[in-house]
Amino acid sequence: MEIDAGKGMECQRTMDGRESNSNGSGKAVVVPSCCMKARASEPELDAKCHSTFVSGWFSELQSASDKSVKEVYFNNPMWPGEAHSLKVEKVLFKEKSKYQEVLVFQSSAYGRVLVLDGIVQLTEKDECAYQEMITHLPLCSIESPKNVLVVGGGDGGVLREIARHSSVELIDICEIDQMVIDVSKKFFPELAIGFEDPRVHLHVGDAIEFLKNAPRGKYDAIIVDSSDPVGPAQELVERPFFETIARALRPGGVLCNMAESIWLHTHLIQDMISICREIFRGSVHYAWASVPSYPRQDFPHVLCFALVLYLYRMINLQSKFYGVIGFVLCSTEGPPVDFMHPINPIEKLDGALEYRRQLMYYNSEIHRAAFSLPAFVKREVEALRNC
Amino acid sequence: MEIDAGKGMECQRTMDGRESNSNGSGKAVVVPSCCMKARASEPELDAKCHSTFVSGWFSELQSASDKSVKEVYFNNPMWPGEAHSLKVEKVLFKEKSKYQEVLVFQSSAYGRVLVLDGIVQLTEKDECAYQEMITHLPLCSIESPKNVLVVGGGDGGVLREIARHSSVELIDICEIDQMVIDVSKKFFPELAIGFEDPRVHLHVGDAIEFLKNAPRGKYDAIIVDSSDPVGPAQELVERPFFETIARALRPGGVLCNMAESIWLHTHLIQDMISICREIFRGSVHYAWASVPSYPRQDFPHVLCFALVLYLYRMINLQSKFYGVIGFVLCSTEGPPVDFMHPINPIEKLDGALEYRRQLMYYNSEIHRAAFSLPAFVKREVEALRNC
Repeated sequence: MEIDAGKGMECQRTMDGRESNSNGSGKAVVVPSCCMKARASEPELDAKCHSTFVSGWFSELQSASDKSVKEVYFNNPMWPGEAHSLKVEKVLFKEKSKYQEVLVFQSSAYGRVLVLDGIVQLTEKDECAYQEMITHLPLCSIESPKNVLVVGGGDGGVLREIARHSSVELIDICEIDQMVIDVSKKFFPELAIGFEDPRVHLHVGDAIEFLKNAPRGKYDAIIVDSSDPVGPAQELVERPFFETIARALRPGGVLCNMAESIWLHTHLIQDMISICREIFRGSVHYAWASVPSYPRQDFPHVLCFALVLYLYRMINLQSKFYGVIGFVLCSTEGPPVDFMHPINPIEKLDGALEYRRQLMYYNSEIHRAAFSLPAFVKREVEALRNC
Repeated sequence: MEIDAGKGMECQRTMDGRESNSNGSGKAVVVPSCCMKARASEPELDAKCHSTFVSGWFSELQSASDKSVKEVYFNNPMWPGEAHSLKVEKVLFKEKSKYQEVLVFQSSAYGRVLVLDGIVQLTEKDECAYQEMITHLPLCSIESPKNVLVVGGGDGGVLREIARHSSVELIDICEIDQMVIDVSKKFFPELAIGFEDPRVHLHVGDAIEFLKNAPRGKYDAIIVDSSDPVGPAQELVERPFFETIARALRPGGVLCNMAESIWLHTHLIQDMISICREIFRGSVHYAWASVPSYPRQDFPHVLCFALVLYLYRMINLQSKFYGVIGFVLCSTEGPPVDFMHPINPIEKLDGALEYRRQLMYYNSEIHRAAFSLPAFVKREVEALRNC
């Protein structure tokens, strides 16, 4: 809880005098104390976040019965000092695409698991909460969305959720990695079903390029469902990207973007909110959702890496860990958007609750509750104090 | 999500034809499919939940540097197929009390950790969210609480939170295990400070006996902060216990009790709510809070054990795992209590926000949000459908 007061500038202070080495550039960069936990993970090199599932964390346990049982775990190396592991039943797919390593395995507790560059992206068991929240938080905040863009989201889950909105006429999706789409179609049919909707137009390529070429004001809503900002998603955490998003949105259009968790690095939330308030001149809010069974992910390693790379820039990191997902919701100047009181409640949309499959997690109550912030967040993130 | 529809009776059905053996009684009891995951943990005997921290889950990792590093983890054996481990820096205390094994260790990521009979009870890092929620949810729901009883809570954290309410004149606490109190005073001063309040009257002994001897209608609020219902807390999950609670509460008095997580065994929530509605004739509601950094606990083993023992009885299990804590809030017949809209908001109580230390997690917004339930819970728990 003794996280520093969350001012952007304080990110540059050294809290304990130590310095971190940037991963690759060789340039020493100061890391604030609230990030030290992430940094401290460095010595635990046995638990590499980008290792394959065969890591130093595997256990070979002798079962209590007579016969020897080999137990293999996919480990999400978390903080130094704690570990969350998923038992691997079978590796279903493992290949390097042009952009990243794509791994699918059958876990014994979470169904099938999709892993990109060593980071768990989704599990069959609990993808519902994430996909529903990132989609319906923005789409239920505006009336009759028609044109929607998904950035990333190659698994198809967000498409599946957008399809519940019968007002939607066009769903563009720009995913850089064809392999993710193919793998999802093969191993995650419950998600990839999203691609079957006739309103979906798939564009395989770079999102920045796509957005630059999009007509100004084309979209009512844009949903950024990208992987962590290392590898192919690197550009998607920078200010220019948000400027192209704002340009592609109609006046009063909305963006929903994965954001930092409240339980960690509140100064990054502060930065993100501040920058979004400059770029998106409508309303900017922070929402969070508890996705309790979400496996904790090896975010800290990513954070550490990204921090060094982007210390002086806007950082928007995915943080599907600690059972919590954060979202930043922004609207452009134009008709005002009140994110906290959905104007387009899902319960009133014809057939939305049952479309293709029942809505599992999201409802209007959960929507409103997502904007309630714990006491320490309001204290530490000045930009959220009066939200 | 394919949990069965949550009817109490369905708990007795066999979903896959297999039967479980009760742990000790030798009587075969049918376990519903939604509990099979817990049952399936049985073969993983290496990960005993009641083992000391020296378990089969320890890892000796060879560090990437030249020197060999021994890494010792306290493992909370979770579901078969996943594991959450805390790195042990130093064992500070380990002794068997008359009732249970009490262990305190210094973890590297969560500060000091209190473990009873192999189950993590609290960590310094994130006790705030739990203690604040279990205390202020009930106390902010009634006007000017005066007499409050804590059942369990030997660490003192709930006492610390009750003390924020200046209307309170008497705080009784009935904890069965003196060793828990002593250990907390020695190793968890931030919690044990609760005992220093002059309004606190400590009773070391059995809660049922204490309640039987309490004058009828003595308390405005009772908070049950017990350990899991194996060992000394076993009686605290049965119907007669709730009857003595109801008797000790004034008309319109309130109970807050740890409850099952929404993400698991929704049929048990259904049972609990139903039974509470019979006993407490005022309002009965279910709240939940995300406590993201709460370490996942080895609840499933306990559940499995308790399920066998109590299958035909009311089950009220602690479930501080999956980053989620559930609470059942009940009021007795009398002046109506609207738990969902706190009549006694903490922000309006003189000095409450800063008393002894700043409130970290709870506020009135979080209070209201705690009653928002995901779509699948409303579907599966009939008793909560219209909440």
